[in-house]
Amino acid sequence: MSFDSSVFSKKALDEAHKRIQPYIHRTPTLTSSAINKMAGCEIVFKCENFQKIGAFKMRGGANVILQLTDAQKQNGVVTHSSGNHAQAVARGAQLNNIPSYIVMPSNAPKVKVKAVEGYGGKITFCEPTQEARVIVAEEIEKETGATFIHPYNNENIILGQATVAKEFFEKHNDLNLLITPIGGGGLLSGSILSRNYYSPNCQIYGSEPEGANGAELSIKQSKLTIHPNPTSIADGLLASLGDITFSVIQHQIEEVLLVSENEIKSAMRLIWERMKIVVEPSSAVPLAAILKNKTLFKNKKVGVIVTGGNVDLGQLPF
Amino acid sequence: MSFDSSVFSKKALDEAHKRIQPYIHRTPTLTSSAINKMAGCEIVFKCENFQKIGAFKMRGGANVILQLTDAQKQNGVVTHSSGNHAQAVARGAQLNNIPSYIVMPSNAPKVKVKAVEGYGGKITFCEPTQEARVIVAEEIEKETGATFIHPYNNENIILGQATVAKEFFEKHNDLNLLITPIGGGGLLSGSILSRNYYSPNCQIYGSEPEGANGAELSIKQSKLTIHPNPTSIADGLLASLGDITFSVIQHQIEEVLLVSENEIKSAMRLIWERMKIVVEPSSAVPLAAILKNKTLFKNKKVGVIVTGGNVDLGQLPF
Repeated sequence: MSFDSSVFSKKALDEAHKRIQPYIHRTPTLTSSAINKMAGCEIVFKCENFQKIGAFKMRGGANVILQLTDAQKQNGVVTHSSGNHAQAVARGAQLNNIPSYIVMPSNAPKVKVKAVEGYGGKITFCEPTQEARVIVAEEIEKETGATFIHPYNNENIILGQATVAKEFFEKHNDLNLLITPIGGGGLLSGSILSRNYYSPNCQIYGSEPEGANGAELSIKQSKLTIHPNPTSIADGLLASLGDITFSVIQHQIEEVLLVSENEIKSAMRLIWERMKIVVEPSSAVPLAAILKNKTLFKNKKVGVIVTGGNVDLGQLPF
Repeated sequence: MSFDSSVFSKKALDEAHKRIQPYIHRTPTLTSSAINKMAGCEIVFKCENFQKIGAFKMRGGANVILQLTDAQKQNGVVTHSSGNHAQAVARGAQLNNIPSYIVMPSNAPKVKVKAVEGYGGKITFCEPTQEARVIVAEEIEKETGATFIHPYNNENIILGQATVAKEFFEKHNDLNLLITPIGGGGLLSGSILSRNYYSPNCQIYGSEPEGANGAELSIKQSKLTIHPNPTSIADGLLASLGDITFSVIQHQIEEVLLVSENEIKSAMRLIWERMKIVVEPSSAVPLAAILKNKTLFKNKKVGVIVTGGNVDLGQLPF
């Protein structure tokens, strides 16, 4: 491990949750008897699409920004993100009256770009690759003296995202399984931490698109593996694991389940039609994985984290 | 009045609510700070799009079906509806193992037709006019001996729909205003009853599309007026008031506010984007009316009933 695991103490998690309270909603959970019938199990959805800025990322962003020193605040913050983390950092910065510099890939959904602008973020576009993001953000960091906030490979981001599962377990202490999508692994790492402290018997599964299966490859090969060319409609899941998230995830989850693009679209439509909620494609990946692996989930009580609802209504896949 | 107003007693309302409990969800309320800021008032949305069958109509349908005699049940039920009442009757009948005959206009949204089929309703399509609906339903009634369940001009339907506002007032006893869309007036009539018993100081407003303003005309002319050719994207609001609903509404609301098609589409998009919930066009009419009449609602606490979420995702207006 490349980090001090004591930062992930139960006390640190509880403090993070307390710290970010004024910045977040305690999001509701929803169920659908129609979907349960189709899936053959009891699914509870934790609706982070109803979170501030429309995604769970507000939790991690707030947890970092609230711990900046006054000197750091003066120079502002910088990050790179395809969208939701960008919004979280811009909004968190705005609430603290500090500048935010946001590097976004040129193919980021317009609705997310527009939202970042609305929160006063200063956007720099880059090529849609992991390398380009990093380089441009480093340049801005040097120029401005802004503090870089990594979207997931950061202990305080992970502690912030861990509060989703913490709230989930506090409300439903009898989940047999919890499944999240995997992008950079911040949410999954945080979910594992919360499971360890609050619901140790709950099994954790990850899920990702077949075309962006960096986490699955990393676990199979027992080493951090960067997907050379991740592609998926699930625009929030194109990032690769970092060394911190990989080290948390590696030996602590059951399995990473892969789903196809069509399975993602079908599950997304199902959620919209049956649950009447707006979710982005990334959020549909866990349900797609459940419907593809019914035997695994049969008759279990399954928690699904619905990660976000920021989607271009003019460009729906159905 | 053409009905016995004693059927609308507080006791009858309370009994209806108790009766339908096993058939309905107590739906949640949601708020959006972004929308509040735009509107200049505090809006609470009561989310009947999360109701069973995706709309408040389940309440009225269940209240009628649960009071049928065994003899009536044998011959089943018949109704005409553009969609949500149809689903409610079909689902209510299915749960009681009785046949349902549903007359739907040929232009009813496919998603609603499909849902009625899914609930085992036997569909007969008719021309999309009020007259055609009535004639075809009467024929089926004669042929089958089924009990006709009017979609709104029926005391027990109105008592069922009244439970939306009853729950709303039980949760928020300080609403200054409550606004609903108006189709046949069942929901609005029921809301007035609940207001009278549970929150007598709350003002009630109706809202309808400019192209389907039958209720506005009826109130202005002080007589039940049928719009000759109602047209709107809000497919749930094309029905005309009945004598019962008109008599309840006539002297007991503040005003009927009219909105254009573009105002409905904008408000619908706003709800989807900001609140992350799927609502049908009819449900967006009250918010459109609030945004059009900001002075009227300024700094008030306003209840909005979100009537349903059954919408063809393949045919969105944006």
